[in-house]
Amino acid sequence: MSVAEIDFDLVETTLRAAGEAAARLTLPLFRTPLAIDNKLEGGFDPVTEADKGAETAIRSIIADAFPDHAIIGEEWGVSGTSRFSWIIDPVDGTRAFISGAPVWGTLIGFAVDGVAVAGLMSQPFIGEEFLAVPGRSTYRRGDVTQANRTSGQTKLGQAKVFTTTPNLFKGEFWDKWAAVESATRLQRFGMDCYGYALLAAGQADLVIEPYLNTYDIAALVPIIREAGGAIARWDGSDPTGGGNVVAAATPELLENTLKLVNAA
Amino acid sequence: MSVAEIDFDLVETTLRAAGEAAARLTLPLFRTPLAIDNKLEGGFDPVTEADKGAETAIRSIIADAFPDHAIIGEEWGVSGTSRFSWIIDPVDGTRAFISGAPVWGTLIGFAVDGVAVAGLMSQPFIGEEFLAVPGRSTYRRGDVTQANRTSGQTKLGQAKVFTTTPNLFKGEFWDKWAAVESATRLQRFGMDCYGYALLAAGQADLVIEPYLNTYDIAALVPIIREAGGAIARWDGSDPTGGGNVVAAATPELLENTLKLVNAA
Repeated sequence: MSVAEIDFDLVETTLRAAGEAAARLTLPLFRTPLAIDNKLEGGFDPVTEADKGAETAIRSIIADAFPDHAIIGEEWGVSGTSRFSWIIDPVDGTRAFISGAPVWGTLIGFAVDGVAVAGLMSQPFIGEEFLAVPGRSTYRRGDVTQANRTSGQTKLGQAKVFTTTPNLFKGEFWDKWAAVESATRLQRFGMDCYGYALLAAGQADLVIEPYLNTYDIAALVPIIREAGGAIARWDGSDPTGGGNVVAAATPELLENTLKLVNAA
Repeated sequence: MSVAEIDFDLVETTLRAAGEAAARLTLPLFRTPLAIDNKLEGGFDPVTEADKGAETAIRSIIADAFPDHAIIGEEWGVSGTSRFSWIIDPVDGTRAFISGAPVWGTLIGFAVDGVAVAGLMSQPFIGEEFLAVPGRSTYRRGDVTQANRTSGQTKLGQAKVFTTTPNLFKGEFWDKWAAVESATRLQRFGMDCYGYALLAAGQADLVIEPYLNTYDIAALVPIIREAGGAIARWDGSDPTGGGNVVAAATPELLENTLKLVNAA
């Protein structure tokens, strides 16, 4: 099967159905007391019932539509081998989730040969959906449907930058964040996947985060690119697989930011 | 006029009407390109048309209902002199507002002899309202109405703490934030007034911020206290007038946090 043979209408339908199935499991648990497992010894890595149940539901819908494709999920790992893969974070921003902040999202990416070309970010409490397929990045909320379009910002000195927390930039990376912080106009923290979605929607100009996993970022790559934005690892390579990532409103802003980050 | 003579049904009606009037001016400007004034030379202090228009609308509704009361607003200053005052921040979290993040809010507090006893926090994009009058702190969204109730958390080591950004804690205050950060279980940034509202709703356990103005905090004081929470300046005094503030799910957690902050 070549890329041309992929039915992207079915990809879109599947993304949306999977997002809606996930919401039926996440929303009833949002802002209620949760049983929280501790995944990391000594660390605090909240994994909720919402996470586990939602990923199971998403996997089932994808497997029904595309039984031969691989699936990579945060909670349940890798299943299958294929040029075509679905990459799932059922609740990106679990810390936001367990503290009641509606800036978490359900992320589902679709990649061909390791590069994401379609994706969904769903924030069901607010009722927002950011969805991309080749040629289109779309925002939906209730009756509102509109194209995502980045701000077009090219200047670091004018840029609004998001990162989840400056504490992500440990050790050798601290200077890189400090360089970005002092070069930009406005910094905001605490957004998780919501920051990338706002970049696609033209509200933020720049997002920078280290140490991402593939399921943190794959879904967001096409949402940003099809909105006119640019996203890469700090070494300039495609970020679908995760790593240290910069997303920018324009290729020029991305290039300037990568220069700054790599010089710091 | 004594406090007993205040018609709190009219206070509640006025808070709600003022919040709705503000929303009609803020929402059409949210997530659209804005004309941003620079209030501070060399700094970045966004003041939007939304801010200015909304405060004018709020003032008009308050003045109609309570013509003898004082009004203190972020944008248009102080008018009138009275034991009874209304304290307004039309858009708390203007940086969230101009970057598309729905964690800003319209704040309106009502104070008697300088202590806030009623207040509204409205987040109109999500459609949420947190409102307190004496004896009651209530959350409303669409058809959902429920009492706000803090988490009951008493232990610092279990606490989820919010602050807008660690960069607020400059110079001598840095050690105070560092002490809170290392004593607590989870830290989140970027919430502005929304963090205090989530504390009232039982989702966050602790909020700490320095250098607040009266209009940043007055509305939130009764929303937290009537939900079972405790809020004070770092010296233990009432925070309605602003300053360095801690809000906590319980009086015990507040006391433990104040000890920690004052020892650091």
